[in-house]
Amino acid sequence: MTIDAGALAGQRCVVLGAGGFVGTSLCRLLNSNGANVVGFGRRSRIDTAVFPGAWVDGEFNDAQAIAQVIDSADVVFHLLGGSNPSASNRDPAAELQTSLATNLSLITTAIRARVGKLVFVSSGGTVYGAATHFPIPEDAPTDPISAYGLGKLTIEKMLRIYSMIDGLDYTILRVANPYGPFQIPNRPQGILATIIQRALHGSPVEIWGDGTVVRDYLHVEDVCDALVRAAATNAGSKVFNVGSGIGRSLNEIVASVSDVLDVNISVVYKAGRSADIPTNILDCTRAQQLLGWTPQVDWAEGLRGTADWLSRLGKD
Amino acid sequence: MTIDAGALAGQRCVVLGAGGFVGTSLCRLLNSNGANVVGFGRRSRIDTAVFPGAWVDGEFNDAQAIAQVIDSADVVFHLLGGSNPSASNRDPAAELQTSLATNLSLITTAIRARVGKLVFVSSGGTVYGAATHFPIPEDAPTDPISAYGLGKLTIEKMLRIYSMIDGLDYTILRVANPYGPFQIPNRPQGILATIIQRALHGSPVEIWGDGTVVRDYLHVEDVCDALVRAAATNAGSKVFNVGSGIGRSLNEIVASVSDVLDVNISVVYKAGRSADIPTNILDCTRAQQLLGWTPQVDWAEGLRGTADWLSRLGKD
Repeated sequence: MTIDAGALAGQRCVVLGAGGFVGTSLCRLLNSNGANVVGFGRRSRIDTAVFPGAWVDGEFNDAQAIAQVIDSADVVFHLLGGSNPSASNRDPAAELQTSLATNLSLITTAIRARVGKLVFVSSGGTVYGAATHFPIPEDAPTDPISAYGLGKLTIEKMLRIYSMIDGLDYTILRVANPYGPFQIPNRPQGILATIIQRALHGSPVEIWGDGTVVRDYLHVEDVCDALVRAAATNAGSKVFNVGSGIGRSLNEIVASVSDVLDVNISVVYKAGRSADIPTNILDCTRAQQLLGWTPQVDWAEGLRGTADWLSRLGKD
Repeated sequence: MTIDAGALAGQRCVVLGAGGFVGTSLCRLLNSNGANVVGFGRRSRIDTAVFPGAWVDGEFNDAQAIAQVIDSADVVFHLLGGSNPSASNRDPAAELQTSLATNLSLITTAIRARVGKLVFVSSGGTVYGAATHFPIPEDAPTDPISAYGLGKLTIEKMLRIYSMIDGLDYTILRVANPYGPFQIPNRPQGILATIIQRALHGSPVEIWGDGTVVRDYLHVEDVCDALVRAAATNAGSKVFNVGSGIGRSLNEIVASVSDVLDVNISVVYKAGRSADIPTNILDCTRAQQLLGWTPQVDWAEGLRGTADWLSRLGKD
């Protein structure tokens, strides 16, 4: 099945979490596809000059502000993240409840606002937990080892219940580890940006564990391509893995960055984290078959482009 | 693997929800096995003279009362139910959040109270949603169609996360539709008690839908046998289906009751409910292999015993 690239032309597309890393790229792609883009979130800490379309400042827990911005939207992209896997296990019960409260409020608001479609970004890296077979298809067991992952999974299942009760249309993307321009280094999520930035500055890279942890890294342009296709699809399947399908260890990533940037990188290994599963690689056959989506960005080129953006960021 | 029937002798066993239908029978079985039984909950509306052991009056949302009663318990049986599938979908978000708040509070309280083991009664009839293959094994997809079922599933997965973080020991039973003495008729759950009681009184039976809805009915004595085995097991598996493995439609049940009681029953069919899945039959091979458990109570005998209890109840 092919998705018409112009399917969103003239449509009112609201991006919640538009100031973030994926949101910024998504808004640019939607804009170039002729969509009427409205961004909502905390104003990006990066260059706002690159943001296309209208912008509404607001917090995720401000239900009234969200109700206003998504009213009668054709598509709402929900990229608002919240916590991260490690932090979420300091107080799992509190994390789960906070995450559900804000997300459930968004879902019921979207129903009342008669939103045409809700595209929800779930977490391909955490909903499956410690899988035993790779790559992982969408129908694999889902046993998250963090409250963060369980929160995402529970929201997925609530979307399904609400679609049965109230007819809410939605698509869920279980996205792998995204990387690329606009990802800010030295944060709990986005190890690749951190590694590249440290490599550019000649500082040592800190790695939790022994560096054998394997993840599925996907360029943000490929993530956004999948998001646009998710918005336009009428497929019966509602849940799609979105990843490269290739597993890379942290040690391999350091080697790749060293190779592409042609610099030496020193690594400091620290004790592993309990919310880290050993391996995550997604099977994205369903997205290929039903969304006509496959990753396009070459690994080395993706790293080079990220490094270019990070080196320009450092000079501002 | 066999479970020693005396494994719980002298152990402090706290039953949360002891005043209910399953709780009453469980406390009696634990008592006859030599356990030191403490019941907690709303005082049963039925004959309290049959209750063995100590009783503590309290509400599920009273965290302090629960903390006190489960302090240093060897085993805590968590039978406190909350809502039911149909009611839960009137406001799914509120239902899920209320259910999680009280259950998560119980889990964290149990960890602080150094409970030896938590036995959690989940719902074999709702966590799988509309399954396509029968009987349903534990590793089948779990896509509940009600907030009630999703609440149970989410708590199951939180127990797993807490066991990894804090070492909480637990076993989950996904129990089918229980029936038997002490089940009160004319409530949202427990259709069998209602059918038998109406048959005894010669009043018509109301059935939602066309009576082809198939469920897995299990006698309460078999449920309690499984609960005791769940408390005593050290099996690596933490989740067990507990059902008869036999599917019976509502129409078949009416016929069985008519047959066993030798009375005619008139049926009034009403519009179906959205939270009703067409079929539920559990595959209980795992419980058989790891808990040495199989249902013992014969269907006709179970119905007769239930009718005896209900006819005595009617005379009080």
